[in-house]
Order: sequence, then structure tokens, then C-alpha cells
Amino acid sequence: MMNIEVVLSPALLHLSDIKDKNVVVIDILRATSTICTAIHEGAEAVKAVKDIEQAKGLGSKGYLTAAERNGQKLDGFDMGNSPFECMNGAVKGRKIALTTTNGTKCIEAAANDGAANVLSGSFLNLEATAEWLLKDGRDVVLFCAGWKDSFNLEDTLYAGAMAKTLSDKTNCLIDCDAALMSIDLYNMAKENLMDYLTKSSHYKRLSHLHHDEDMVYCLQKSIFQTVVGIVDTEMKKM
Amino acid sequence: MMNIEVVLSPALLHLSDIKDKNVVVIDILRATSTICTAIHEGAEAVKAVKDIEQAKGLGSKGYLTAAERNGQKLDGFDMGNSPFECMNGAVKGRKIALTTTNGTKCIEAAANDGAANVLSGSFLNLEATAEWLLKDGRDVVLFCAGWKDSFNLEDTLYAGAMAKTLSDKTNCLIDCDAALMSIDLYNMAKENLMDYLTKSSHYKRLSHLHHDEDMVYCLQKSIFQTVVGIVDTEMKKM
Repeated sequence: MMNIEVVLSPALLHLSDIKDKNVVVIDILRATSTICTAIHEGAEAVKAVKDIEQAKGLGSKGYLTAAERNGQKLDGFDMGNSPFECMNGAVKGRKIALTTTNGTKCIEAAANDGAANVLSGSFLNLEATAEWLLKDGRDVVLFCAGWKDSFNLEDTLYAGAMAKTLSDKTNCLIDCDAALMSIDLYNMAKENLMDYLTKSSHYKRLSHLHHDEDMVYCLQKSIFQTVVGIVDTEMKKM
Repeated sequence: MMNIEVVLSPALLHLSDIKDKNVVVIDILRATSTICTAIHEGAEAVKAVKDIEQAKGLGSKGYLTAAERNGQKLDGFDMGNSPFECMNGAVKGRKIALTTTNGTKCIEAAANDGAANVLSGSFLNLEATAEWLLKDGRDVVLFCAGWKDSFNLEDTLYAGAMAKTLSDKTNCLIDCDAALMSIDLYNMAKENLMDYLTKSSHYKRLSHLHHDEDMVYCLQKSIFQTVVGIVDTEMKKM
């Protein structure tokens, strides 16, 4: 039976044993949504890195450089952290070195903790990722990046959506209060995620920075089939 | 305007500034419910201590000693962590030294971090505690003890109940996703908390240990008016 667990914050990751499990890293607004979009739009790979300097350094090795802190693109980089920057051929065939406030360090943490696979979670490819997880069959840890270690609503909603999708399709063991809460929250909000999230702290933060269309985009469900996860050391098409 | 924040786990307390705020420590099953019951039943004070040895040592100073780990009473102590042990005059006029798996260390942590007041949260005196907080007027941090640093449903439900009660009665600023989630969860479950919690991990743990009637008792709302919090260094009637 597939065991499903939800980690609500990077500060709680140490409580879970992720070894040999499939870990889905979730930073809906916007890192993991942007990574999925980049790969779907034909980028060869996205290398998630923790440090700004490391991302910049990869520029000299032919990577497009992308950096965001506190919701804003950093000067001196090719891109920020918006999925729209990945469209219209902008990333086709390229490798991208990406560093963000929350998501990229979680990808590194999960990879270093011995996960069997580290996937990039987004509503955009929810169904396809669920199918991949069901086919693989390993236990699943849904790992919310949050905001600077704090709980957030949008990542929790995705965790609930994925836990529900998986448990609707196979026998799952969910002995994790965070997963139970996430499913209930998603069931409450699923008819209109955007409406629900207008009260969230990160919505206000991003809206203030004029990222409203990024949010509308990132909350679309299952609009493409590309599954994205770490292959060797970079995020690629699985 | 009263600011309300929810801390979902002791491992997330460092993200919140609790200095000069009113902190309600929440360990519904069962430490803070038991503390409130003990004071309501006439105990002079409950001293919450982290260590088993410390609790035992206070026995020689006239305290009743109470200790629980992993849901079970420890041998060699007067009491465990059940509210029923506080009834029928058993604690009247006495001081109790209590150590539990989760709740008592949170009380100590909150007190050491400079909170203005540290209150003991329980459904049993929800309304009375809300009235006290409203009258005092300081910002409120609702601090869930969880289970060994993990998120749990019952503490989150109380946080939601308290946040809702406060925000129904005064203008509150809730710019905290954990508080928003807690309120929604409580609204979903409020008609029958026991039914909702039968799926929770701690319900299963306690039910397995035959503590079902403790749980039924602890989920009763506003059955007494005694407000309980730290006075000097011990939990007393406020």
C-alpha cells in the first residue's frame, strides 16, 4: 500500500524519513511551477541551486541564469522566477541555473537526504505526475517549501490535491495529520483556488509585486503532461 | 487591532516573535486540558516541567507528581496526564508538578521567550480564555504543541476555534496562513469535533491506550469559566 506523507515546511523535514521514497517538492508560487514550465517549453534542464553566486557562476558554462529573492528578479541575471519568461522559445534547448527564496533549497535538501526520486510539483502537471507516482509505486512524501520555513496555503493545497488524486486511484495509507488536513483544505478550495488564495500571505506579497498573472497561470490544473524530476543532478523530463 | 498568529509546531516557534504577546499553549490531548481541569478543580498550581527527574524531585517539596510519556502514565508518579485524575477532590489545594511528552516543554519555551503571558489552552474554557484575551488586548500567538514536533489536527482545531472566536468579537489582523487554515479547518469540523478527529493520528494512539473518555471530555466546549496561565512560574487561576 502506498504511504503518503505531507511535510508542511522545510523546518519539519527532519521529522520524516524520505530515504528511498519519491519526494515531490512543492513551491507553487513560483519555483516548481516555473521549473515544470521550463522543461515543458523545451529547456534541456534546470539546475536548482541554493546560492546566488553559484547560479551566476554557471552562466559562464552556458547556462541561462535565473534568480529571485523575496518575489523579485535579481539584477544581473537573465531571468527571474516567472513561468512566462520560459515561453515563446526563450529556454528551448537551453540549460537554466535557478536560485529562489524557497523552492530551490528544498530540491537540494531532498536530493541530499537520499530520496529515490525528487520531482517538481505543480498544478500544471498534477495528473501526469500522479500517474508517474502511481506507476512507480514507492511511498510518497509531499514536501511543501513554504515561505522562509513558514507554512503556506498554496503549497498545502497542492499537497492536498496530490494526496487526494493518489488516494482516489489506489489504496493508500495516510497516517499523517498534515496529509489529512491538506486533503480537507483542498476539498474546500478546489472549485476556485484563486478565490481561496486571495486571502493568503503570499498572494498579497506577489500581487503587490504585480505578479497576478503568474498566479492565475500557476493555479491551472493539468494543462500539460510533462513530468519533471531530478535526473543525475538536474531537473529534467522524466 | 489585535494581531493573531498560529504556530503549528514547536519546531516553528523560532519564526515568530512572541515577546510581549499573549501566548496560548495548546496541547488538547491532553496536557493543557488537564492543567485547566486541575486548576478548575481547585489545585493551587501546576508547575509544568520538561524533565521527568525534575517532576519527581518536586515530590519531596509537597507537590503531587504527574508524568506521561507517549500517552502513558509513568511508574512511580502520583498521576499521569488524564483530566479525570484531577476530579473528586484529588488535587484540591495541592500543587502539581507535571511533565508530558509535548505540552509542558512548550509552556517552558514560551515562558523563556519573553511572552507577556502564557496561557493554557483548552476547549473546556475556550470562551472564558477568549474574553480574557480580548480584555487584555495584546497580540495573540496560538502555539500548538503537536506530537513530537509534528503537526496535529486537534491542536490546530483549537487554534482555529480561538482565532475565530477572537475575530468574531473584535477587529483582528490575521496575516498568517496557518491561522487562516486553522479557522477553515475548525469551521469544517466544529459541528462534531470527535467525529472529525477519529481519523487523526493521536486519536488512534490514545484510543489504542483506552483513553477514549479523556478525548470525549477534552473536546467539550466552554464548560467552565476558569482562565489558566502562568503566574510567577506556575500555572494558576488568572
